[in-house]
Amino acid sequence: MSITFSQISQALARIQPYIHHTPILQSRQIDGLLGCELFFKAENLQKVGAFKARGGCNAIFSMDEAELHRGVITHSSGNHGAALAWAASLRGADCTVVMPSNAPLVKKQAVRGYGAKVVECLPSMADREATVAAEIKAAGSVMVHPYDSDVIIAGQGTAALETLAQLDTLDKVPDIIMSPVGGGGLLAGTAIATRALAAQANTTISVIGAEPQGASDAWQGFISGQRVEQYTPDTIADGLRATLGVRNFEIIQQQVNDIVLASEQGIVDAMRLIWMRMKIIVEPSAAVCLAAVMENPQLFHGKRVAIILSGGNVDLDALPF
Amino acid sequence: MSITFSQISQALARIQPYIHHTPILQSRQIDGLLGCELFFKAENLQKVGAFKARGGCNAIFSMDEAELHRGVITHSSGNHGAALAWAASLRGADCTVVMPSNAPLVKKQAVRGYGAKVVECLPSMADREATVAAEIKAAGSVMVHPYDSDVIIAGQGTAALETLAQLDTLDKVPDIIMSPVGGGGLLAGTAIATRALAAQANTTISVIGAEPQGASDAWQGFISGQRVEQYTPDTIADGLRATLGVRNFEIIQQQVNDIVLASEQGIVDAMRLIWMRMKIIVEPSAAVCLAAVMENPQLFHGKRVAIILSGGNVDLDALPF
Repeated sequence: MSITFSQISQALARIQPYIHHTPILQSRQIDGLLGCELFFKAENLQKVGAFKARGGCNAIFSMDEAELHRGVITHSSGNHGAALAWAASLRGADCTVVMPSNAPLVKKQAVRGYGAKVVECLPSMADREATVAAEIKAAGSVMVHPYDSDVIIAGQGTAALETLAQLDTLDKVPDIIMSPVGGGGLLAGTAIATRALAAQANTTISVIGAEPQGASDAWQGFISGQRVEQYTPDTIADGLRATLGVRNFEIIQQQVNDIVLASEQGIVDAMRLIWMRMKIIVEPSAAVCLAAVMENPQLFHGKRVAIILSGGNVDLDALPF
Repeated sequence: MSITFSQISQALARIQPYIHHTPILQSRQIDGLLGCELFFKAENLQKVGAFKARGGCNAIFSMDEAELHRGVITHSSGNHGAALAWAASLRGADCTVVMPSNAPLVKKQAVRGYGAKVVECLPSMADREATVAAEIKAAGSVMVHPYDSDVIIAGQGTAALETLAQLDTLDKVPDIIMSPVGGGGLLAGTAIATRALAAQANTTISVIGAEPQGASDAWQGFISGQRVEQYTPDTIADGLRATLGVRNFEIIQQQVNDIVLASEQGIVDAMRLIWMRMKIIVEPSAAVCLAAVMENPQLFHGKRVAIILSGGNVDLDALPF
């Protein structure tokens, strides 16, 4: 394993001046409905509206001046692009984001709003990578991979680190911590942070990933032991359409307890429930964990569960309900 | 003046075990847009989705067993009704809520969801009061007025008390604190709490109310020195359609620095801006302060402003945008 707990705690110290310390929210009504005690880490209230601010910020603030001067590039369905664009702007670096043509308009606008250049590509991982390669050849920018990267995984792991510290203050050690899984940066970082903290506290916390049935490459790989390399996702959860990364797959195989699936209707229902009951705006990807809890009650009944709400960037003019 | 600062701090001690300690949120993007530093007290994340939980809880937990046994009654366009129903359920008391027929469905459902009885009336203050009087005559319940009441004003004042304590921790004393004004419970409580805390800290904080142009009875009374007794509101801000109360008027005349107005379009624009940028769900009434800031920039430019976001109960199927 290439990423250590101390890289995550160093990442937190590095990014803390720039990110929000997001609250943990609870809903007695949702708890009552589902028969478990849920603690939601509201990363939809994070800078750029998603936990991706953590990884992007850690990547940019880990670079030296020579790298920054070359500018940075990435591919992203949206939130990582916005995060990198935002973090690059904090250090005055140029940023280019390759985005699939079907990414939500609000996410393309956010990237441009932070001063980055958007280059559109076809909605496949192959075309994303080819487009990035062509741009790097032309401009010499430094690639910051959205998830298959040590600095990114360490940055995303800070969300779990913060969550568990906040729950510790409340004297509420969870039985389970959940994050959605797309490319796997958040889930891998969550697993590393949680395993280390649980060991320190001499306790056990299960780490569970949640994935849409329509983008279940991580689940398939987790079950079969073989990473799925080619996959065409079909899900409303636009933030989870990426294919699981190589180092993310390894970490997840070793350190994650389970991956559970959620249906498309379940994701929309969970999203609406969060909006209605918790009065916060979450995007479909952020609702996948709650959907998985609702659709797999036997795994969660009576348990104390921490859920990382990944982001809140939605087109208000194109709601699924 | 009948309500003291110590009644507000006693109220906070009384209700603290039951309410959420809601966060203060900021948006650099909105600050940049408006040229001021805004701190939003997120009472949309409060129990029952509104600051009204504070007053309702303070009223119920100030009652003795004999009063509780009679049951409680109120009239409400929604949030106070839900708050009283919720608080009554905590002590096992019966609760009846008289609601105007045009109150949002989601608010009627919330009241019923907490186990209270809903009695519909015409959408006028006169019919609200007549319907309550008839119910009291029939059942002998104890009236808990939604705003023209010492325990309610003291309860609502705890929102400002908490806000100023949180800003003090951040070393950010505001120049201005704002709340919306309908019946005037929140604004009156905010004024009493703020004046007392500012005096203790040997500083000055302006207290400004914000009101829809289509429900400007408080503004008219503030300007003329004469409380408006009859008024037919016409505004999307359903939480602010009540007419300013008698004791609220007196407190506001003495202790509030200004009341500013917001247009209907401004309220919708501000509501959408909060949803988009802050990723939280606020109802139209909660957006009136930001709308007033946007439409009266000369009063707020360069200032540090605390805004109480009053609530987040909206029909997701009937959004104004």
